[in-house]
Amino acid sequence: MSTLSQRLATATTLAEEAGEIALRWFRAAPEVTNKAAAGLFDPVTAADHAVEEFLRTELARRFPDDRFLGEETGESGGDGPFRWVIDPIDGTRSFISGNPLWGVLVGLEEGDRAVAGVVRIPYLRETFAGQGQRAYVQLAGESQPSPRVRRTLAPARKRAEIPLRTRDTALLADAVLCSTSPEMFEGPDMDAFERLRTRCRLTRFGGDCYSYCTLAMGHVDIVAEAGLQPYDIVALAPIIRAAGGVVTTADGGLAERGGFIVAAANEALHEQTLAMLAHPS
Amino acid sequence: MSTLSQRLATATTLAEEAGEIALRWFRAAPEVTNKAAAGLFDPVTAADHAVEEFLRTELARRFPDDRFLGEETGESGGDGPFRWVIDPIDGTRSFISGNPLWGVLVGLEEGDRAVAGVVRIPYLRETFAGQGQRAYVQLAGESQPSPRVRRTLAPARKRAEIPLRTRDTALLADAVLCSTSPEMFEGPDMDAFERLRTRCRLTRFGGDCYSYCTLAMGHVDIVAEAGLQPYDIVALAPIIRAAGGVVTTADGGLAERGGFIVAAANEALHEQTLAMLAHPS
Repeated sequence: MSTLSQRLATATTLAEEAGEIALRWFRAAPEVTNKAAAGLFDPVTAADHAVEEFLRTELARRFPDDRFLGEETGESGGDGPFRWVIDPIDGTRSFISGNPLWGVLVGLEEGDRAVAGVVRIPYLRETFAGQGQRAYVQLAGESQPSPRVRRTLAPARKRAEIPLRTRDTALLADAVLCSTSPEMFEGPDMDAFERLRTRCRLTRFGGDCYSYCTLAMGHVDIVAEAGLQPYDIVALAPIIRAAGGVVTTADGGLAERGGFIVAAANEALHEQTLAMLAHPS
Repeated sequence: MSTLSQRLATATTLAEEAGEIALRWFRAAPEVTNKAAAGLFDPVTAADHAVEEFLRTELARRFPDDRFLGEETGESGGDGPFRWVIDPIDGTRSFISGNPLWGVLVGLEEGDRAVAGVVRIPYLRETFAGQGQRAYVQLAGESQPSPRVRRTLAPARKRAEIPLRTRDTALLADAVLCSTSPEMFEGPDMDAFERLRTRCRLTRFGGDCYSYCTLAMGHVDIVAEAGLQPYDIVALAPIIRAAGGVVTTADGGLAERGGFIVAAANEALHEQTLAMLAHPS
């Protein structure tokens, strides 16, 4: 059986190839299907289906014992201890709106815990990966500063793995909070989010999976989002944790289950965030 | 005196150089100053100052008669008929949060009308420009599909000017709405925005200047934002208009004045948007 690090390397390669498949549809007037009930809008595109099919097939071929859970096709695969958890395009609403902040999420679970994850942001050519104590990002050469230097780099050169490290913001009053949309929150969740939002220094909306990546890079402090599915968070959790962050549900449960998810840059800030969400003060 | 198209070409070159200056600070732990009154947060960075100073100096050197209005330094320059209107970093909150969707805005007014505009998105290496009936985007070679082909392009090759065209969405119920944050709206403006939001098919938050660029590219239909300053919109207006869109204040006035701004993909959708903002129904 292949090791965990072999699986991470394979996941990285496949996520990057999957991203190139998705880019064929990006900004190309994708045909959008609404998969929600009447009155709601839950878009899915041909790109979602093509990317998931690619990942499902390629992973099954390499790791036939591994189980598979995908946003579009549900469960499949073998009966081994590992399960791949895939969101072919996280941020489909961004994707269909021409916004480049969408990603391919490839996560790996063993038991009920996420043990490795890869996030590919195809348009930015950035790859985030995490496993155990190790989290890093590989940036596109063309997206880094000093373009005059960059242009002389051979394209095939191995890209640097830049370690990810969350920051040490200690107080909510100094924290930058991210959330894809206030529309995620309903009823008591909305009240809880509003308590948190008004205590933080700054709130940024939008971002989808990229918000968690900026947290892992040390540029924002908290991400709070409701209504997530396991495939929205399993690939991200190992990256956040290996970078020094903490991610759970709002009641402190396993993030891998989905639901109201809270990621924070460090343990102290995570505790304050959960307390603020739980108790009016 | 230089012609308008010479000014557009100069603005393009300078905006791209200015973006390279700003990138030196991006994700490099910028020193953030709060320029707002107590209790609010209005960040400005060393990058804002450096970029505005670069643009002010370079434009004054080339066009000494032109007037200049910048977010950080206010009014300066000569007494000619043209006025440059600059936002050195539109989306400073994105910039300090590691989010790549911020831009350098260089607009040109003659009288009270915007006559040309350039938006450079440095991290994405995209340049949007508009003047008269002509609007186009130049994409980074590295950001386009088919990377294997792209990598063989010589970096110095002139980038293609891809024409911008808004789309023909006819009904609010089919429209994708963008707005940087619901926190922009207060009191009656919030009620008006909520009426609009609940009538549209989909709302996307975040984006700053990039929302208007995606509208000009034909990927979203409406952008509605309150509290804008002239330097937030003067560079964007010629791009939106030349791409087929309509941009005004929420009461139908000149967008160049700032305030509650409504951009729409076409005249029919713009009329419906203004009507929905004005009248509960």
